[in-house]
Amino acid sequence: MTNRVINFYAGPAGLPVDALKRAQDELLDFAGTGMSVMEISHRAKEYDAVHEEALALTRELMGIPSNFKVLLLQGGAHLSFGMIPLNLLRKGRKADYITTGNWAEKAFKEAKLVAGDNVREAASTKAEKFARLPKASELQINPEAAFVHFTSNNTVEGTQWHDFPKTDKPYVCDMSSDIMWRPFDVNQFGIIYAGAQKNLGPSGVTLVIMRDDFLEMCEAQDLPSYLRFKIHAEKNSLYNTPPTFGIYILRNVLAYNKSIGGLKAIEANNRKKGELLYGCLDKHAGFYKSFVTEKADRSLMNVDFFLPSEELTATFVSEAKKNGMVGLKGYRDIGGIRVSTYNAVTVDNVKTLVDFMEEFAKKNG
Amino acid sequence: MTNRVINFYAGPAGLPVDALKRAQDELLDFAGTGMSVMEISHRAKEYDAVHEEALALTRELMGIPSNFKVLLLQGGAHLSFGMIPLNLLRKGRKADYITTGNWAEKAFKEAKLVAGDNVREAASTKAEKFARLPKASELQINPEAAFVHFTSNNTVEGTQWHDFPKTDKPYVCDMSSDIMWRPFDVNQFGIIYAGAQKNLGPSGVTLVIMRDDFLEMCEAQDLPSYLRFKIHAEKNSLYNTPPTFGIYILRNVLAYNKSIGGLKAIEANNRKKGELLYGCLDKHAGFYKSFVTEKADRSLMNVDFFLPSEELTATFVSEAKKNGMVGLKGYRDIGGIRVSTYNAVTVDNVKTLVDFMEEFAKKNG
Repeated sequence: MTNRVINFYAGPAGLPVDALKRAQDELLDFAGTGMSVMEISHRAKEYDAVHEEALALTRELMGIPSNFKVLLLQGGAHLSFGMIPLNLLRKGRKADYITTGNWAEKAFKEAKLVAGDNVREAASTKAEKFARLPKASELQINPEAAFVHFTSNNTVEGTQWHDFPKTDKPYVCDMSSDIMWRPFDVNQFGIIYAGAQKNLGPSGVTLVIMRDDFLEMCEAQDLPSYLRFKIHAEKNSLYNTPPTFGIYILRNVLAYNKSIGGLKAIEANNRKKGELLYGCLDKHAGFYKSFVTEKADRSLMNVDFFLPSEELTATFVSEAKKNGMVGLKGYRDIGGIRVSTYNAVTVDNVKTLVDFMEEFAKKNG
Repeated sequence: MTNRVINFYAGPAGLPVDALKRAQDELLDFAGTGMSVMEISHRAKEYDAVHEEALALTRELMGIPSNFKVLLLQGGAHLSFGMIPLNLLRKGRKADYITTGNWAEKAFKEAKLVAGDNVREAASTKAEKFARLPKASELQINPEAAFVHFTSNNTVEGTQWHDFPKTDKPYVCDMSSDIMWRPFDVNQFGIIYAGAQKNLGPSGVTLVIMRDDFLEMCEAQDLPSYLRFKIHAEKNSLYNTPPTFGIYILRNVLAYNKSIGGLKAIEANNRKKGELLYGCLDKHAGFYKSFVTEKADRSLMNVDFFLPSEELTATFVSEAKKNGMVGLKGYRDIGGIRVSTYNAVTVDNVKTLVDFMEEFAKKNG
């Protein structure tokens, strides 16, 4: 414990220490079974209890109604980028994609590979390096589109949809980097998908939440079985061997999240963290330059900024490390500093960073 | 430690306790980083060392030449069942599949979904409930086939190819349930793939070993990126976020395997275990009836047998459990008892079981 650092990695990222301690305590003997949870058959009742609890906690924390299925798959958002068009868009159905960053663009490109001209860009801020989100007036939604795909938080660029895009179409959304950061109404979503490795658990688990009418739209009987959402839904994500240990850690994280007051409490923490961090950036706006150009689009999960020089950036990273803070180096295409403040990063962690940033600005500004 | 049971599950299955202890010791602080290995970015040097070591140990233990790529993917054998025909068989190339059990049949069906009549069954023992392997004289290899697919060990039925099928075609092989049970020459293999959850580590990691000429045969530029072997090979399995914790456990298991003498030592243990277990079955052949009809085809990984009645079977399972042995219930379609004796099951574990079986036969025979 004493040696734990403050972890600002963009993903895989820090997890609640209580969830990890629970795993450590029972790593050789899970729930009195005499086995690690990773050594237990996925058909055994001891594992099944973990699987069901992970699914139930997801439903409870997010308030997911019964007309949605919750799936625990593999392959991260990347495999979902492909599975969504393979299941939904090969037979002429149309969809719109809003491209707001590196990951949103990947989702769009993967959909085009499968569905060609049936998918189009409803808006893009690429000309502005994705440094802001499109405004409502910039969205050009195809009336024939079956859904609008968007990326709720742009991990690389540090923008986030605080109000979801204005459209009456169902959403399909990559929420990998901000799922469960706050409560929200899932009903307008046809599909929510998220790699676990930012807000939920370790890499190797993908959470997919799918509305029943979207599941019914899947026309994919000629696809290999693993790629068919319907099969996973019918078999409760036990069609094949699931990533059992990853799901167990997800369960631990969700149980911890519930114990601290659920998504409302988590949202309050995230908002405090954002106030502290953006407050510091705004105060020292001559020294720390924000990458994002519209304040309304600022992400509460990833905060990108630049220092006056590359030398100072390198010094910032190395001095932060000496002070027990890691993972601050910016994404390779953007540079500068990126602070990822996912759910497991505490308000105190951010206070420590902000104190350091104040000092650093005074000394070098 | 004192509470550990003897684990005969068919997968996910027991792992070497040393590999688990190592994980437990550093679960909150990996290698002095102040983080769990699952909290570290997959682009950080601390994770990279684990990734590279897992790959290097795989090469070293199996003696894999430099004209093969080693990949660490997700989705288990199930996703590989689809990826192989999607990458190799959509443009008219032909392949033969030998169906020798439940899993071999699944591989064949998935290939047919993608490639239709371009894949055929080179042999099947389904008419005999897969209770033996086809003989060399029964194999009907299509001269036009680019490869012959087989399943090296049939987990459900308990048969194993001790000598690989007689053909001069390259093999494509699902080795999920017996990879690394012994040394063998990989050169005739175009692709070897294996879900980790039997001999290698936790579920959620898939090992794929692919010969360069097979990689070159992949014609898949219209496939979603996650499904393209070439992309994973070019990016050293870091195209997307890999299942980092699972790969770390794989590394721990492989490092342990090396420390005990590598695959030669493991093979010697596996042969001793087989002698003990099959010796007991043969000695009590009137009481324990083997499912497999040909002794030459008996698996050293999964041993299926029946007791005289369902009542005795249930008693066997429950009394074994009282004696600290779990996972012995047979596969649902076959019934009876299945003893899975993967690499992590020790000779002493099997001795304990055999002593119990001797007693049980005496008391109830």
